[in-house]
Amino acid sequence: MGCEQVVIPARTARAFRVRAGQTLRVIDVEGQQVADVFCATATEPAEILSGIVTTQLNKAVYLTTGHVLYSVRRRPLLTIVADTVGRHDLLMGACSAYSYRLRYGVEDHPSCQGLLGAVLAPLGVAPDVPDTFNAFMNVPVAPDGSLSIEVPLSRAGDSVTLRAEVDLLVGVSACPADLSACNGWNPTAIAVEIETPPDA
Amino acid sequence: MGCEQVVIPARTARAFRVRAGQTLRVIDVEGQQVADVFCATATEPAEILSGIVTTQLNKAVYLTTGHVLYSVRRRPLLTIVADTVGRHDLLMGACSAYSYRLRYGVEDHPSCQGLLGAVLAPLGVAPDVPDTFNAFMNVPVAPDGSLSIEVPLSRAGDSVTLRAEVDLLVGVSACPADLSACNGWNPTAIAVEIETPPDA
Repeated sequence: MGCEQVVIPARTARAFRVRAGQTLRVIDVEGQQVADVFCATATEPAEILSGIVTTQLNKAVYLTTGHVLYSVRRRPLLTIVADTVGRHDLLMGACSAYSYRLRYGVEDHPSCQGLLGAVLAPLGVAPDVPDTFNAFMNVPVAPDGSLSIEVPLSRAGDSVTLRAEVDLLVGVSACPADLSACNGWNPTAIAVEIETPPDA
Repeated sequence: MGCEQVVIPARTARAFRVRAGQTLRVIDVEGQQVADVFCATATEPAEILSGIVTTQLNKAVYLTTGHVLYSVRRRPLLTIVADTVGRHDLLMGACSAYSYRLRYGVEDHPSCQGLLGAVLAPLGVAPDVPDTFNAFMNVPVAPDGSLSIEVPLSRAGDSVTLRAEVDLLVGVSACPADLSACNGWNPTAIAVEIETPPDA
């Protein structure tokens, strides 16, 4: 198959073109590390991932194997086809300079929004990047509806694999959050493998 | 004050211009009726409500008094300033022709997306309308993360009041869902009051 593994160093992001039928495997290299996954359709980069359309059409907030990520236009973009962890997040979106200022009073903190926006801009994607699939992020919903950011359940080598349903532009960031339990208080690397199945 | 009440008949929608500082009171006329509330900034209609930025920055999925609805660019759009019910939804977005086909196999069912898109298009808002604040909608999150649509807790005359933080284009629909408990199996009217506070 000749699958190449791309390492995304801690606190950085990478953009990829993924063709329909290819799979994107997101690997937590050292464990307890979140990867924000953003995507837009290759044919129209304004058609981006929608967290709310995805919660609506799956009727679920914790996504795992069999669930589908949808666009703002209700088109299937990615299907989760394998998952060694079973806990990922869709409700916290991408961290941003704004969220670090609001929560921690910190200015100009590196963020998934900033990192993803920078690597996706050359592909024609607008920099807002509001909604992301946050692989390995552990955000339980309490009975009162409040959200908390807990240490990820992922260990070194754990992965989640998504199959592209249409040609996509995908951004993956190794989340730089170091002021919460998001990445076990220690941001590390993420790896990505893009594979073409034999029958594709 | 001279506040005018606008009735939105069952299965229809209306668009409003709401100025910064004005309040929008959404009233459940007969009880157990959902109103989908969509908004975009008046200065740039592409800057729309983001459900995920809103769950992220409030760290909550059930919104009530004190919570803020944010745009895709992380700008505060509306603040909930009064709420006689305490249960509304943000995770189910707008129902769409797609969601009725997917869930019930029904073609061309009227939907909040269609109704809101039609009344907002003349104001320059794109028709996708993915994310909405669903006043009175009762969507509990189960411990396993699954969502269910239950009968609203609202009774006749209940209301939720939102203050505009910037000049807004707002769409409000009386949700036409009649194939689930969403509106107590019986879609009815919604009323809206837009008020300018004495000190605004």
